[in-house]
Amino acid sequence: MCRGTTAARIIGTNVQKLRNFDNEVKMWVYEEMVEGKKLTEIINTQHENVKYLPGHKLPANVIAVPDACEAVRGATHIVVVIPHQFIEHLLKTIHGSVTHGARAISLIKGIAIDKHGMTTMTQMIHRALAIPVSSLSGANIANEIAEEKYCETTIGCAEPDEAIVWRSLFNTPYFQVNCVGDVIGVEFCGAVKNVVAVGAGFIDGLGLGNNTKAAIIRIGTLEMRRLAMHISGAQIQDSTFNESCGIADVITTCYGGRNRRLAEEFVRTGKPMAQLEQEMLNGQKLQGYLTAGEVYQYISSRGVADHFPLFTRIYKICYKGEPPQSIFDGLNVDFSRDRRTPSPML
Amino acid sequence: MCRGTTAARIIGTNVQKLRNFDNEVKMWVYEEMVEGKKLTEIINTQHENVKYLPGHKLPANVIAVPDACEAVRGATHIVVVIPHQFIEHLLKTIHGSVTHGARAISLIKGIAIDKHGMTTMTQMIHRALAIPVSSLSGANIANEIAEEKYCETTIGCAEPDEAIVWRSLFNTPYFQVNCVGDVIGVEFCGAVKNVVAVGAGFIDGLGLGNNTKAAIIRIGTLEMRRLAMHISGAQIQDSTFNESCGIADVITTCYGGRNRRLAEEFVRTGKPMAQLEQEMLNGQKLQGYLTAGEVYQYISSRGVADHFPLFTRIYKICYKGEPPQSIFDGLNVDFSRDRRTPSPML
Repeated sequence: MCRGTTAARIIGTNVQKLRNFDNEVKMWVYEEMVEGKKLTEIINTQHENVKYLPGHKLPANVIAVPDACEAVRGATHIVVVIPHQFIEHLLKTIHGSVTHGARAISLIKGIAIDKHGMTTMTQMIHRALAIPVSSLSGANIANEIAEEKYCETTIGCAEPDEAIVWRSLFNTPYFQVNCVGDVIGVEFCGAVKNVVAVGAGFIDGLGLGNNTKAAIIRIGTLEMRRLAMHISGAQIQDSTFNESCGIADVITTCYGGRNRRLAEEFVRTGKPMAQLEQEMLNGQKLQGYLTAGEVYQYISSRGVADHFPLFTRIYKICYKGEPPQSIFDGLNVDFSRDRRTPSPML
Repeated sequence: MCRGTTAARIIGTNVQKLRNFDNEVKMWVYEEMVEGKKLTEIINTQHENVKYLPGHKLPANVIAVPDACEAVRGATHIVVVIPHQFIEHLLKTIHGSVTHGARAISLIKGIAIDKHGMTTMTQMIHRALAIPVSSLSGANIANEIAEEKYCETTIGCAEPDEAIVWRSLFNTPYFQVNCVGDVIGVEFCGAVKNVVAVGAGFIDGLGLGNNTKAAIIRIGTLEMRRLAMHISGAQIQDSTFNESCGIADVITTCYGGRNRRLAEEFVRTGKPMAQLEQEMLNGQKLQGYLTAGEVYQYISSRGVADHFPLFTRIYKICYKGEPPQSIFDGLNVDFSRDRRTPSPML
């Protein structure tokens, strides 16, 4: 919600300068009461999402609507931001209201992995709505963006002409957009980096230092690249990991972020993850924990868990009661022979 | 000195288990008086470098010697660790004492760059002593290693058989060594990462957040890779940046380390760098500041400064009085077409 409002704030400002877009930006807001008033009405009168992004004014052309179908009706460009457990229901709801010729972009962090492979949010949206879907992900802690602190992001868009349009909607002097053609690589990074962040949290919980965390980030990123190759063939470009959605987001998430924080508490307190989710996330499931389980299911069913010692250790510490200190067991793996997708000019 | 003692502590422990090595490890120590006693005598009786690595016992087979010539005489393997401004004098001193057939490894962080190109420490040592020289660098804050916190390092060694020997001297369960063939790439990373750390320090001084620092690390690493290609042709392997000496050391140095810290103070206090060096480093020169100047001299004399917007901004903020906020000017560069050296199995 914070992320959605932040996106609406940027797009609302940008469309005012873009000739090819209507001025009005409709923002679907799940209706709730805040101090006796409807949240949508507060947003539309005070121009501030007082519940999810307090202290940051929205431009007046951002209109909060409580009905998702109304939000998408007639829209040429649809930005999808929602906790990923609600996406299926939302897609069923809006399915009949999406305009022919519309395009979507997904800002959702989360993919589904099982032993057969992975399904990304853009694939799920595309199947439901039958429109082209791009992805956006990066080193983007929402509050820092709202404070207009300089950062970068990555848009994955299959069509270069469309990429230019999406970039024009999101790019600002403080929010720098790079576009790549690799839609699912951008999503893959945004989801799997949370597993690395769980590992980084264990390091903090163990009271280790910067050297150790840098080692976990390095090995974690190489295992991400290796997993991308396994799970997607050559579909995910290795160069995507050089973008903001790749290495930069891994770093941000391993130093800030709630995946890191809960994993740290998991080690410090010895409490079960479910209890920490209850205490620290109001019962919401921790993404990195879930994804660690899904990734292990995939690599173990394929018989390649040995090639992912860090992901395997993180899984076993999370789910099998193994001690956090065992995270270092067997980490010294040779990644130098991993196949890389060549860069365009090679 | 802290780094040298840390290395001697590891090697002293390892040689006790290696059949092909003498038990005794001689450690040259610049003689000084500590509370009325010679430092070498303290080390040889208390087995602790009370001045530079207090609180960490050395194995008894590490013998401190005040004479550098005596330290290298008869040695088959020479580990060179010294602040880089003293290296030339040291090489002249020991030149006649080095045994025929000896090998050296440099742990020195620092390279010299001018408009003609770069000279690394291993090149300088090789020219002076005419023996094979390898390099070691990584995400290795010395105190954390002494505390035996898990980390990784990279050895650059041209000869695979020699790499195995060097690895056997340095590798421990908590200090994991990876070997690459790219000797100067390892050194290049160890020196140029300090320029990125100066940029990261500016970000901290400006009170910006994790997103911004991740962006600076990402762009800084891509400019390092681009500079490596420019300055070395294909000599430096792009894959070296995936090692501990590459991305991991950049991260460690951008979150800890004195380059980051001085740059932060530079922004916060507005004091000139020379004054901060006096106040915070006892007048020692800050490596990242020096290297930023050298790198700019190279890229500007070659007419390619435009391709290095971050390095250029860091130089101008350090040397030309430009405001720290200007670090973001022109940063949105397309790195996607940079040529990459193919990985071995491509």
